Amino acid sequence: MMKGQAEVICVGTELLLGDILNSNSQFLGQQLAALGIPHYFQTVVGDNKSRLQDAIAIASKRASILIFTGGLGPTPDDLTHDAIADFFGVPLVERPEILQDIIAKFAQRGRKMTANNRKQSYIPQGAEVLPNPTGTAPGIIWQVTPDLTILTFPGVPGEMKPMWRKTAVPYLKSQGWGQEIIYSRMLRFRGIGESALAAKVGKFFTSTNPTVAPYASKGEVRLRLSAKAASETDAIALIEPVAQQLIEIAGLDYFGADEDTLPKVVGELLRQKGETLSVAESCTGGGLGEMLTAIPGSSDYFLGGVIAYSNQLKIALLGVRAEDLEQFGAVSAPVARQMALGVQKQTLSDWGLSITGIAGPDDGRSSKPVGLVYIGLAAPDGTAETFEYRFGQERGRRSIRFESACNALDRLRRKQVAYKNI
Amino acid sequence: MMKGQAEVICVGTELLLGDILNSNSQFLGQQLAALGIPHYFQTVVGDNKSRLQDAIAIASKRASILIFTGGLGPTPDDLTHDAIADFFGVPLVERPEILQDIIAKFAQRGRKMTANNRKQSYIPQGAEVLPNPTGTAPGIIWQVTPDLTILTFPGVPGEMKPMWRKTAVPYLKSQGWGQEIIYSRMLRFRGIGESALAAKVGKFFTSTNPTVAPYASKGEVRLRLSAKAASETDAIALIEPVAQQLIEIAGLDYFGADEDTLPKVVGELLRQKGETLSVAESCTGGGLGEMLTAIPGSSDYFLGGVIAYSNQLKIALLGVRAEDLEQFGAVSAPVARQMALGVQKQTLSDWGLSITGIAGPDDGRSSKPVGLVYIGLAAPDGTAETFEYRFGQERGRRSIRFESACNALDRLRRKQVAYKNI
Repeated sequence: MMKGQAEVICVGTELLLGDILNSNSQFLGQQLAALGIPHYFQTVVGDNKSRLQDAIAIASKRASILIFTGGLGPTPDDLTHDAIADFFGVPLVERPEILQDIIAKFAQRGRKMTANNRKQSYIPQGAEVLPNPTGTAPGIIWQVTPDLTILTFPGVPGEMKPMWRKTAVPYLKSQGWGQEIIYSRMLRFRGIGESALAAKVGKFFTSTNPTVAPYASKGEVRLRLSAKAASETDAIALIEPVAQQLIEIAGLDYFGADEDTLPKVVGELLRQKGETLSVAESCTGGGLGEMLTAIPGSSDYFLGGVIAYSNQLKIALLGVRAEDLEQFGAVSAPVARQMALGVQKQTLSDWGLSITGIAGPDDGRSSKPVGLVYIGLAAPDGTAETFEYRFGQERGRRSIRFESACNALDRLRRKQVAYKNI
Repeated sequence: MMKGQAEVICVGTELLLGDILNSNSQFLGQQLAALGIPHYFQTVVGDNKSRLQDAIAIASKRASILIFTGGLGPTPDDLTHDAIADFFGVPLVERPEILQDIIAKFAQRGRKMTANNRKQSYIPQGAEVLPNPTGTAPGIIWQVTPDLTILTFPGVPGEMKPMWRKTAVPYLKSQGWGQEIIYSRMLRFRGIGESALAAKVGKFFTSTNPTVAPYASKGEVRLRLSAKAASETDAIALIEPVAQQLIEIAGLDYFGADEDTLPKVVGELLRQKGETLSVAESCTGGGLGEMLTAIPGSSDYFLGGVIAYSNQLKIALLGVRAEDLEQFGAVSAPVARQMALGVQKQTLSDWGLSITGIAGPDDGRSSKPVGLVYIGLAAPDGTAETFEYRFGQERGRRSIRFESACNALDRLRRKQVAYKNI
């Protein structure tokens, strides 16, 4: 088993300038914790060879696994492999398999490889290639000495994360890490605040194995249960009974665990009953449909719908009555109701879900303030309900739209469960 | 004027575990850049006195301003001031004015001060108090030697940021910083890869003032121009001519600067000509409409459209010919074309934009692989074009959908510009 500890070195002047947020260091911190690999320092350094080598000198003294992100690109300021090779006194050597892979990827995207991409096929002599499934720049795994291993990844999170999971994790496990594992389970709640939930389940927060910690995050509240054990099975055995108690206490406010999301849960309930859903969106402009179709296989139950951003389309495509738009306004319960029933009728779906509201920042009036949103839900039995929300304009347009879509999905979920239990 | 450079040291085991995202380091990076204070390293270290002192030893050798965040709280694992005092061989001394302030704040919130809060009134001997307007834990400003100044802040961003602005910025300016500022401009490009752009404009990468640095990010490539000057006006004067050259070289691949996004640019072009847009989405399921309506005021030009996720809706709401769906399949140029023309007709919009594709992960066939996407664009003159993309399934569903929406907007943008120039 590898000795010692890991150190994360994030390379990029854009990080020092604050142009981008360093989400890679958080991801790697979580991953190292899950593998039980000690991790005491993180360093951020710019695209500068000598300072990068200063960081290597310090880190290689106090850690035995150096994990680099960034600086693998095709441009001259991408120096990570160059700095590493130089520091340890080995040349960069071209690896034909990398070059082939880069050429193939360009071909696939119908683009021609440019000369500077060839730079990416050079890695330190003696290092193994860490394949990059999503991008052109590969990383390396290099056992420099028995006590020092170097792993490098691109800075783009979308490339770094799959590389880490597919290649680094298996490698580290093969080196004996991840024996005593930390296994976490995330319980997800909707329609209850963090403090209200904490008041209900506070007595669990003193539990030590598993630990139970609350997190408020966009559109939901979470409880993270973490157990330390020799195996995942043992950890799950510790977590499961506690999770069940928490779920029971929370009732309908609990909607799912771990990777579950509202669109996924709603979709599963539709699939189970072989029902279909369509949406009619005004202020969310397609965001609700986007969330629903983010789930692979959603075409099994999601038919589509209408983005009725203008009143004209509310009338023409959804059959909303012009006089009601006139009398009650586009942001009103009657219009939300007609939108839901209209899209249900137009698409012959079992469920119709609608959103109309004022996302702002402008167009608010005292009678209809920014943040006022109506959700309409048409059920298979032909009945329709509406729900009013007042998010307040401080929330901002983005959050008002997101919360509107989440609440629409949650209203549907609660109604589905009620139906299911009939 | 202070010599040398700043170094940011973020203290907190929760950062190493990835429980929280390190947004403080981004904020401080931006602030230091704005003040023109060189900043070459950031360190994250846990709540451990000896490792914290290791970090101080290293940072105090290479920087003259050490900026700490975190570890100022009332609990035993809050060690920042203790570690600093110890490292420089001075005692912690209680400051009555801090104690009074803490007691007052608790009283104000109708709570009683707990014993452990008293800990927060001890700071290194010789240090000045950095008041904390929003929380109980104050920080310090300590000129340890003529060449070393230490500033400490709480880790909670909501407390750290106002403290920084109200106290640290004026202090640093009084020390002569912020006379010379760094001003940055971001140029945004679409439809060209990082390496291809670099090949075109590579000669600018050696420029020193402004510096020109490329980076690839989701859905676009960027060039960051940064100039050092006595004032923003002077910096802009340095940046502008270089920016103009780059924009000229890039031609249509350049779409905007700084806060510009594709939906914003497309929207501005529509607004300028008083034109309207509607969308017909299949694989993006509403994501294109969501992007367009994320822009405040988009109702001026965006009418809405149809989410035609099922073939049935493509026929019923967009008038796509059933026999063409049969013959060519839903993911085909003819269907993309009919979707764009159909939504244009249905909504009486000037422009109709459609997307149909296979986002995966399943349903790919050799003839129609995952990642195959067709975009349809119906122009005000009644003509329609289609565009084929092959993103490859490695990209993943999320990225394929996002790239599809971005490319649809970019095709529209290019066509608008062509129209504009007629």
